[in-house]
Amino acid sequence: MLKIAFQGERGAYSETASKKMFNENILISPSFSFEEVFTKVKNNLVDYGVIPIENSLYGSVFESYDLLLQYSLTIVGELNLQINHHLLANKNYELKEIKKVYSHPQALGQCSIFLKSLKNAEIIPAYDTAGSALLLLNNKEMPVAAIASREAADIYKLKILKSNIQNNQENFTRFLAVSRKKIKKEFKNPKTSICFELKSMPGALFRALSVFALRDIDLMKIESRPIPHKPFEYNFYLDMKGSLSDDKIKKALNHLAEISLSIKEFGTYEVGKTYKS
Amino acid sequence: MLKIAFQGERGAYSETASKKMFNENILISPSFSFEEVFTKVKNNLVDYGVIPIENSLYGSVFESYDLLLQYSLTIVGELNLQINHHLLANKNYELKEIKKVYSHPQALGQCSIFLKSLKNAEIIPAYDTAGSALLLLNNKEMPVAAIASREAADIYKLKILKSNIQNNQENFTRFLAVSRKKIKKEFKNPKTSICFELKSMPGALFRALSVFALRDIDLMKIESRPIPHKPFEYNFYLDMKGSLSDDKIKKALNHLAEISLSIKEFGTYEVGKTYKS
Repeated sequence: MLKIAFQGERGAYSETASKKMFNENILISPSFSFEEVFTKVKNNLVDYGVIPIENSLYGSVFESYDLLLQYSLTIVGELNLQINHHLLANKNYELKEIKKVYSHPQALGQCSIFLKSLKNAEIIPAYDTAGSALLLLNNKEMPVAAIASREAADIYKLKILKSNIQNNQENFTRFLAVSRKKIKKEFKNPKTSICFELKSMPGALFRALSVFALRDIDLMKIESRPIPHKPFEYNFYLDMKGSLSDDKIKKALNHLAEISLSIKEFGTYEVGKTYKS
Repeated sequence: MLKIAFQGERGAYSETASKKMFNENILISPSFSFEEVFTKVKNNLVDYGVIPIENSLYGSVFESYDLLLQYSLTIVGELNLQINHHLLANKNYELKEIKKVYSHPQALGQCSIFLKSLKNAEIIPAYDTAGSALLLLNNKEMPVAAIASREAADIYKLKILKSNIQNNQENFTRFLAVSRKKIKKEFKNPKTSICFELKSMPGALFRALSVFALRDIDLMKIESRPIPHKPFEYNFYLDMKGSLSDDKIKKALNHLAEISLSIKEFGTYEVGKTYKS
């Protein structure tokens, strides 16, 4: 059975993403931090790690970008998960009785309109969404609720008092699966991710992008991250359509190497499907 | 006297940046959040707001980027502040007596090597660096310390037990000053910031950068931020050398408009000087 590490408690959105990506029948390894996920994969304690890389409202997850570069892991899969928040409580309580609502501050913010309608409830920030659901198990005699995933409701046997309570329905998180091993296979709709540090010259980034534009390679995302010992210089991360085995991508990367100090290939994988959480 | 808003308690690094930017003789308006800073400037409660936009180790401050676009303020100044963390305590304690150290989690992480040498001290995360210095005033009879700025030591009359305790000395934060009013003046070393949303087409970003490269306009920074109701589409932020009054920049922006859905000009300002905190 495949063993998958993710950051967060049981019932985290990353667990939902892991199951959609690898199927329900996996051994899961909840982890305290993103770095713990990478370490488990690197040291062969799990087969894959699943990490959030970007949210459609909040943007890139910096820590994931930095860890991709620090650890030499390969990206082997992608998935977009629509984030649907639900109000969970122990089974003996109704919505109008709720006196306290716990969740991660970002989730509380994403549900601010609904929360304003709960006039008698105190809103309390917690460490994470699944962790706030877990909290309810220790408060069975209290009219308290948590904002978390449907998965968390199932795992902790909680009731969904109200579903889809987020302000903006278009809230998607993009997850990546990372592995120690490179996987050789054919892709229907391949996507390739790289990172590079450019030589210092005028128009450096324009030259780098021209390497792809001149070969009709479509870029899907660009991200820049600071280089720790070079203040205000950047590594660039690119996602592009196509595979590392495509002739034109090989040539583009050779061309990019002429103007780069370093290039790292994270791998080719299938463009992610979108699921509801 | 100029009135300046910044996020944080008295003694925050943003206060140091405000004083370096506008001189010591200002009225300061400490604010709870970045959004409060923007609101105060917009509603004429202060003359300028000073916000961090980027750190050389941690990268861009997303919230500042998003607020620049939401509020129609003008960038009128820039400054780089070297972040030097110091261990502060009440005057009657010595380093070896310290039992607890408070600070913002990021500051605690930046001083992890020094903190490991304090074998008997408990490390406790706090809301912000200056706030943790303020905490010491309520604990005068306790051997506790805080990691914060030299400015905080001066303001709260605390002793610096140990200075420059950060792991990485190359830790710079770039701050911007924002104003309601556009300022017309001559610059020695001008920098211009804009934001744009591109029309959807192949090689769109390459075309956007070519608008500047073809006119020998040097780009200094590119940042992308998600567009809230268009999942996985991005606004691009560019900093470039030169002034909005330069003929070639005017022409480049006209050219950029041909391939953009919208362009926002944040203004021209002098490239920031670097100071120690």
